[in-house]
Amino acid sequence: MAEREVDVVLLSIGADLPYFTGYEAMPSERLTVLVVRPESAPAMIIPRLEVARVESPGIEVHPWDETDDPIALAAGAGGTPNRVAVGDHMWSAFLVGFQQRWPEASWEKASSLTGELRLVKDSEEVACLRNAAHGVDRVMARIPSEVRFTGRTEAEIARDLREMTVEEGHDVAEFAIVGSGPNSASPHHEPGSRVVEEGEVIVCDFGGRWGGYYSDSTRTFVAGEPSECQVEVHAAVLAANRVGKEKAGPGVRCQDVDAAARSVMADAALDEYFIHRTGHGIGMEVHEHPYIVDGNDVELRPGMAFSVEPGAYIAGDFGVRIEDIVVCTEAGVETLNESDRSLVNVT
Amino acid sequence: MAEREVDVVLLSIGADLPYFTGYEAMPSERLTVLVVRPESAPAMIIPRLEVARVESPGIEVHPWDETDDPIALAAGAGGTPNRVAVGDHMWSAFLVGFQQRWPEASWEKASSLTGELRLVKDSEEVACLRNAAHGVDRVMARIPSEVRFTGRTEAEIARDLREMTVEEGHDVAEFAIVGSGPNSASPHHEPGSRVVEEGEVIVCDFGGRWGGYYSDSTRTFVAGEPSECQVEVHAAVLAANRVGKEKAGPGVRCQDVDAAARSVMADAALDEYFIHRTGHGIGMEVHEHPYIVDGNDVELRPGMAFSVEPGAYIAGDFGVRIEDIVVCTEAGVETLNESDRSLVNVT
Repeated sequence: MAEREVDVVLLSIGADLPYFTGYEAMPSERLTVLVVRPESAPAMIIPRLEVARVESPGIEVHPWDETDDPIALAAGAGGTPNRVAVGDHMWSAFLVGFQQRWPEASWEKASSLTGELRLVKDSEEVACLRNAAHGVDRVMARIPSEVRFTGRTEAEIARDLREMTVEEGHDVAEFAIVGSGPNSASPHHEPGSRVVEEGEVIVCDFGGRWGGYYSDSTRTFVAGEPSECQVEVHAAVLAANRVGKEKAGPGVRCQDVDAAARSVMADAALDEYFIHRTGHGIGMEVHEHPYIVDGNDVELRPGMAFSVEPGAYIAGDFGVRIEDIVVCTEAGVETLNESDRSLVNVT
Repeated sequence: MAEREVDVVLLSIGADLPYFTGYEAMPSERLTVLVVRPESAPAMIIPRLEVARVESPGIEVHPWDETDDPIALAAGAGGTPNRVAVGDHMWSAFLVGFQQRWPEASWEKASSLTGELRLVKDSEEVACLRNAAHGVDRVMARIPSEVRFTGRTEAEIARDLREMTVEEGHDVAEFAIVGSGPNSASPHHEPGSRVVEEGEVIVCDFGGRWGGYYSDSTRTFVAGEPSECQVEVHAAVLAANRVGKEKAGPGVRCQDVDAAARSVMADAALDEYFIHRTGHGIGMEVHEHPYIVDGNDVELRPGMAFSVEPGAYIAGDFGVRIEDIVVCTEAGVETLNESDRSLVNVT
């Protein structure tokens, strides 16, 4: 904070607060905020009805009642700051409230301070990510024998994947993308009422939270026999996934990993269909720094965890994505996801 | 917007965007924002990989690529605004970005404009809320015969409730509070590894989303025979629930409904244990306007939907809460939840 000349940091919902304190705020119209000032102990302003949730020792808890103004309470202690860093995910409604109270202050996002601290995972954090990744791998392995695709809706299949994600140990199944046929060409497709038919590919991208850390993996399946085109596109994406991981390692810039994966897609004349970055960091958030994207010249260091997930999306036809979580090591990367990456046949 | 002299409204994640457009943005570090200016058609800035998710006709879609600056795109079209309203739930990181681009503008939360529009539900919206409420009522009715409590953890029971919430038709089980024994005295308890024992009360507060609208109901159960004290506290809370609903109706101020429920608790010398407001509005968000809280002098109008959920929380001992969703009618309120409110015995 001193280095960046930040006088106050305000942390609310999002992963910064549990990362530093062990307490996770509920997303709510009732403000919870940790006020961090160098000159005093961090103080957490929290709705009285949520005080009993706080089990973290060392947090100074200031409950507020339903008719109190929590922003006045949070802003009240200590002088007027010049520079305030605010948690990236804090609701704008609260930020607007703080800004009305401190109209002269300048504002920045807290991730400019906290991002650097959270970027490199220690061995305990890597163990959590590995554990979660292996859980989602077990779900992937069960899919061909246990999940029926043809004749069922994407929403039904997504529900199966969520259930299995919890069965395999996750605390919460956070998301499940199931895109079938033409919907597989929509990278963030919301699973719906579309019924899977024979001969279609199905992109399954799901994960959950386990002990505070996330899993996130994608495999592309095919119901019945794949077409030649499906096989070719899948092979290119798989090669891009492999080359991206091979490129990654200490000292390599994020953008170079992206470029390596992208060049494989270009060699297959599929680069125009690879419409998103190669990956994202992962930890206590599903998406966090470092982003594996063109223009990001951050150099990888041991302990950085991120996805390598090239894809190809042919609008109106089909799409393919293959996603693994990896952790940068001294030598290269450790791939945390190890389930079958081939175009696995399902029924 | 003209009335409030607002030049631009920016809507991102949260319920305002689907309320007005039918499209729900993904919570993500990739910005989706609808830019509303009176002089031009609303334009939605959206990550290219999410374009295929948009099925709402009439939205002008502006995709951005991974290396674009979405804030520059969103701010670029049209003049520099004097006054901007920003969606309450937009991530602060994005608001900070917009503020750097428009440093002279003044900022307010969008709910100061949209809250009024969303406050009164039309008959179709009420039908959605009724439908969701009846779904959660069916879960409540199944609990005594289907859910085993003693010897199981809160987390296991919460998982059952979530599953049944989906089984009874909800699209998503959004939350499930299960607080047993002393944990029932923590209104927003996070279900954990605590095992339920004979003679304990268990507060079960859960709900989900169905067709875009939420259910939210609470009943308090007892494993085995209740103590005299448990019976007395439950009776007081039940009376407060009834009196609150009886008080509510068109022209009645929100704070008067809160006061009515609170006075019942005071008569039972339990008001110091009723540590939260009496209720919250509900619709496309679980919590929205109107809040049934002291100091809120908004008068109820037909179509306003909200919870009546008094409680008593005796720290270290036990708690009770009974929550129904009601809708204001011409005559009083319609109670949407009708499951058994007594201190139902479970095993």
